[in-house]
Amino acid sequence: MLNELTKKSVLGNPVRLGIMIYLLTHKRAFFKELQEVLSVTPGNLDSHLRTLEKEGFVKIKKAIADRPRTIIIITEKGAEETKKYLKLLKEILNEL
Amino acid sequence: MLNELTKKSVLGNPVRLGIMIYLLTHKRAFFKELQEVLSVTPGNLDSHLRTLEKEGFVKIKKAIADRPRTIIIITEKGAEETKKYLKLLKEILNEL
Repeated sequence: MLNELTKKSVLGNPVRLGIMIYLLTHKRAFFKELQEVLSVTPGNLDSHLRTLEKEGFVKIKKAIADRPRTIIIITEKGAEETKKYLKLLKEILNEL
Repeated sequence: MLNELTKKSVLGNPVRLGIMIYLLTHKRAFFKELQEVLSVTPGNLDSHLRTLEKEGFVKIKKAIADRPRTIIIITEKGAEETKKYLKLLKEILNEL
Protein backbone atom coordinates (compact mmCIF):
# COMPACT_ATOMS: atom_id res chain seq x y z
CA MET A 1 0.00 0.00 0.00
CA LEU A 2 2.87 2.39 0.83
CA ASN A 3 4.19 1.93 -2.69
CA GLU A 4 0.92 3.46 -3.91
CA LEU A 5 1.52 6.49 -1.72
CA THR A 6 4.99 7.09 -3.14
CA LYS A 7 3.81 7.03 -6.77
CA LYS A 8 4.10 10.45 -8.33
CA SER A 9 0.73 12.16 -7.91
CA VAL A 10 -0.36 15.73 -8.35
CA LEU A 11 -2.05 15.29 -4.94
CA GLY A 12 1.24 14.39 -3.25
CA ASN A 13 1.63 18.06 -2.39
CA PRO A 14 -0.18 19.17 0.80
CA VAL A 15 -1.33 22.51 -0.64
CA ARG A 16 -2.82 20.86 -3.73
CA LEU A 17 -4.40 18.15 -1.57
CA GLY A 18 -5.85 20.85 0.70
CA ILE A 19 -7.31 22.73 -2.28
CA MET A 20 -8.92 19.58 -3.65
CA ILE A 21 -10.33 18.46 -0.27
CA TYR A 22 -11.94 21.88 0.14
CA LEU A 23 -13.34 21.80 -3.40
CA LEU A 24 -14.62 18.27 -2.95
CA THR A 25 -17.04 19.48 -0.32
CA HIS A 26 -17.67 23.01 -1.65
CA LYS A 27 -17.60 22.28 -5.42
CA ARG A 28 -16.34 25.83 -6.11
CA ALA A 29 -14.47 28.55 -4.26
CA PHE A 30 -13.18 32.05 -4.72
CA PHE A 31 -9.42 32.50 -4.91
CA LYS A 32 -9.49 34.68 -1.81
CA GLU A 33 -11.56 32.07 0.03
CA LEU A 34 -9.03 29.30 -0.70
CA GLN A 35 -6.21 31.57 0.33
CA GLU A 36 -7.81 32.16 3.72
CA VAL A 37 -8.89 28.58 4.35
CA LEU A 38 -5.46 27.22 3.51
CA SER A 39 -3.33 30.08 4.89
CA VAL A 40 -1.21 30.33 1.78
CA THR A 41 0.24 33.28 -0.11
CA PRO A 42 -1.44 34.34 -3.37
CA GLY A 43 1.67 33.38 -5.34
CA ASN A 44 1.86 29.94 -3.79
CA LEU A 45 -1.87 29.32 -4.31
CA ASP A 46 -1.75 30.56 -7.89
CA SER A 47 1.13 28.26 -8.75
CA HIS A 48 -0.62 25.18 -7.34
CA LEU A 49 -3.92 26.09 -9.02
CA ARG A 50 -2.17 26.28 -12.38
CA THR A 51 -0.77 22.79 -11.84
CA LEU A 52 -4.23 21.50 -10.92
CA GLU A 53 -5.76 23.21 -13.96
CA LYS A 54 -3.09 21.74 -16.25
CA GLU A 55 -3.96 18.29 -14.90
CA GLY A 56 -7.66 18.91 -15.51
CA PHE A 57 -8.50 18.78 -11.80
CA VAL A 58 -10.03 22.28 -11.66
CA LYS A 59 -11.33 25.00 -13.94
CA ILE A 60 -10.42 28.59 -13.25
CA LYS A 61 -12.85 31.32 -14.24
CA LYS A 62 -12.99 35.07 -13.90
CA ALA A 63 -16.34 36.36 -12.66
CA ILE A 64 -17.09 40.02 -13.10
CA ALA A 65 -20.01 41.15 -11.02
CA ASP A 66 -19.48 44.27 -8.93
CA ARG A 67 -15.74 43.43 -8.97
CA PRO A 68 -13.62 40.86 -10.79
CA ARG A 69 -13.12 37.66 -8.86
CA THR A 70 -11.45 34.38 -9.63
CA ILE A 71 -13.58 31.28 -9.15
CA ILE A 72 -12.11 27.79 -8.98
CA ILE A 73 -14.41 24.91 -9.87
CA ILE A 74 -13.66 21.23 -9.32
CA THR A 75 -13.93 19.00 -12.41
CA GLU A 76 -15.32 15.49 -12.47
CA LYS A 77 -11.81 14.14 -13.01
CA GLY A 78 -10.53 16.21 -10.08
CA ALA A 79 -13.27 14.89 -7.81
CA GLU A 80 -12.66 11.27 -8.83
CA GLU A 81 -8.89 11.47 -8.43
CA THR A 82 -9.19 13.18 -5.06
CA LYS A 83 -11.62 10.55 -3.79
CA LYS A 84 -9.22 7.83 -4.94
CA TYR A 85 -6.31 9.47 -3.15
CA LEU A 86 -8.31 9.95 0.05
CA LYS A 87 -9.40 6.32 -0.08
CA LEU A 88 -5.74 5.29 -0.27
CA LEU A 89 -4.84 7.52 2.68
CA LYS A 90 -7.71 6.05 4.70
CA GLU A 91 -6.62 2.51 3.93
CA ILE A 92 -3.06 3.28 5.02
CA LEU A 93 -4.23 4.95 8.22
CA ASN A 94 -6.62 2.09 9.01
CA GLU A 95 -3.81 -0.42 8.76
CA LEU A 96 -1.80 1.26 11.50
CA MET B 1 -7.75 22.16 9.86
CA LEU B 2 -6.71 22.41 6.19
CA ASN B 3 -4.41 25.28 7.11
CA GLU B 4 -2.52 22.82 9.32
CA LEU B 5 -2.05 20.51 6.37
CA THR B 6 -0.55 23.25 4.21
CA LYS B 7 2.04 24.26 6.83
CA LYS B 8 5.52 23.36 5.66
CA SER B 9 6.31 19.94 7.10
CA VAL B 10 9.05 17.47 6.37
CA LEU B 11 6.24 14.89 6.19
CA GLY B 12 4.44 16.78 3.43
CA ASN B 13 6.31 14.63 0.93
CA PRO B 14 4.71 11.22 0.21
CA VAL B 15 8.01 9.33 0.08
CA ARG B 16 9.12 10.74 3.44
CA LEU B 17 5.67 10.07 4.90
CA GLY B 18 5.83 6.50 3.58
CA ILE B 19 9.26 5.94 5.13
CA MET B 20 8.07 7.23 8.50
CA ILE B 21 4.84 5.22 8.47
CA TYR B 22 6.83 2.07 7.79
CA LEU B 23 9.34 2.88 10.52
CA LEU B 24 6.59 3.71 12.99
CA THR B 25 5.45 0.10 12.93
CA HIS B 26 8.82 -1.58 12.28
CA LYS B 27 11.08 0.72 14.38
CA ARG B 28 14.04 -0.01 12.05
CA ALA B 29 14.55 -1.11 8.47
CA PHE B 30 17.31 -1.91 6.04
CA PHE B 31 17.83 0.49 3.14
CA LYS B 32 17.03 -2.25 0.67
CA GLU B 33 13.87 -3.14 2.57
CA LEU B 34 12.55 0.44 2.42
CA GLN B 35 13.41 0.61 -1.24
CA GLU B 36 11.30 -2.46 -1.96
CA VAL B 37 8.37 -1.56 0.28
CA LEU B 38 8.12 1.95 -1.17
CA SER B 39 9.09 1.15 -4.77
CA VAL B 40 11.57 3.99 -4.97
CA THR B 41 14.98 4.30 -6.58
CA PRO B 42 18.08 4.18 -4.33
CA GLY B 43 18.92 7.80 -5.21
CA ASN B 44 15.45 9.02 -4.37
CA LEU B 45 15.33 7.08 -1.10
CA ASP B 46 18.80 8.24 -0.11
CA SER B 47 17.91 11.88 -0.69
CA HIS B 48 14.74 11.67 1.43
CA LEU B 49 16.55 9.74 4.19
CA ARG B 50 19.15 12.50 4.42
CA THR B 51 16.41 15.07 4.85
CA LEU B 52 14.79 12.96 7.57
CA GLU B 53 18.16 12.48 9.29
CA LYS B 54 18.89 16.22 9.16
CA GLU B 55 15.52 16.83 10.83
CA GLY B 56 16.32 14.28 13.51
CA PHE B 57 13.51 11.96 12.46
CA VAL B 58 15.76 8.96 11.78
CA LYS B 59 19.27 7.70 12.49
CA ILE B 60 21.23 6.03 9.73
CA LYS B 61 23.79 3.39 10.65
CA LYS B 62 26.09 1.07 8.76
CA ALA B 63 25.99 -2.51 10.00
CA ILE B 64 28.79 -4.79 8.98
CA ALA B 65 27.98 -8.43 9.62
CA ASP B 66 28.58 -10.78 6.70
CA ARG B 67 28.09 -7.79 4.39
CA PRO B 68 27.75 -4.04 4.93
CA ARG B 69 24.16 -2.90 5.19
CA THR B 70 22.51 0.42 5.95
CA ILE B 71 20.01 0.40 8.79
CA ILE B 72 17.53 3.21 9.34
CA ILE B 73 16.17 3.65 12.86
CA ILE B 74 13.28 5.89 13.85
CA THR B 75 14.02 8.44 16.60
CA GLU B 76 11.65 9.42 19.37
CA LYS B 77 11.18 12.82 17.73
CA GLY B 78 10.47 11.13 14.39
CA ALA B 79 7.87 8.86 15.95
CA GLU B 80 6.17 11.75 17.77
CA GLU B 81 6.07 14.02 14.71
CA THR B 82 4.76 11.22 12.50
CA LYS B 83 2.00 10.37 14.97
CA LYS B 84 1.02 14.04 15.10
CA TYR B 85 0.89 14.26 11.30
CA LEU B 86 -1.16 11.06 11.02
CA LYS B 87 -3.55 12.37 13.67
CA LEU B 88 -4.07 15.51 11.57
CA LEU B 89 -4.69 13.45 8.42
CA LYS B 90 -7.21 11.30 10.29
CA GLU B 91 -9.05 14.36 11.59
CA ILE B 92 -9.25 15.82 8.09
CA LEU B 93 -10.49 12.54 6.62
CA ASN B 94 -13.03 12.08 9.39
CA GLU B 95 -14.51 15.50 8.69
CA LEU B 96 -15.33 14.59 5.09
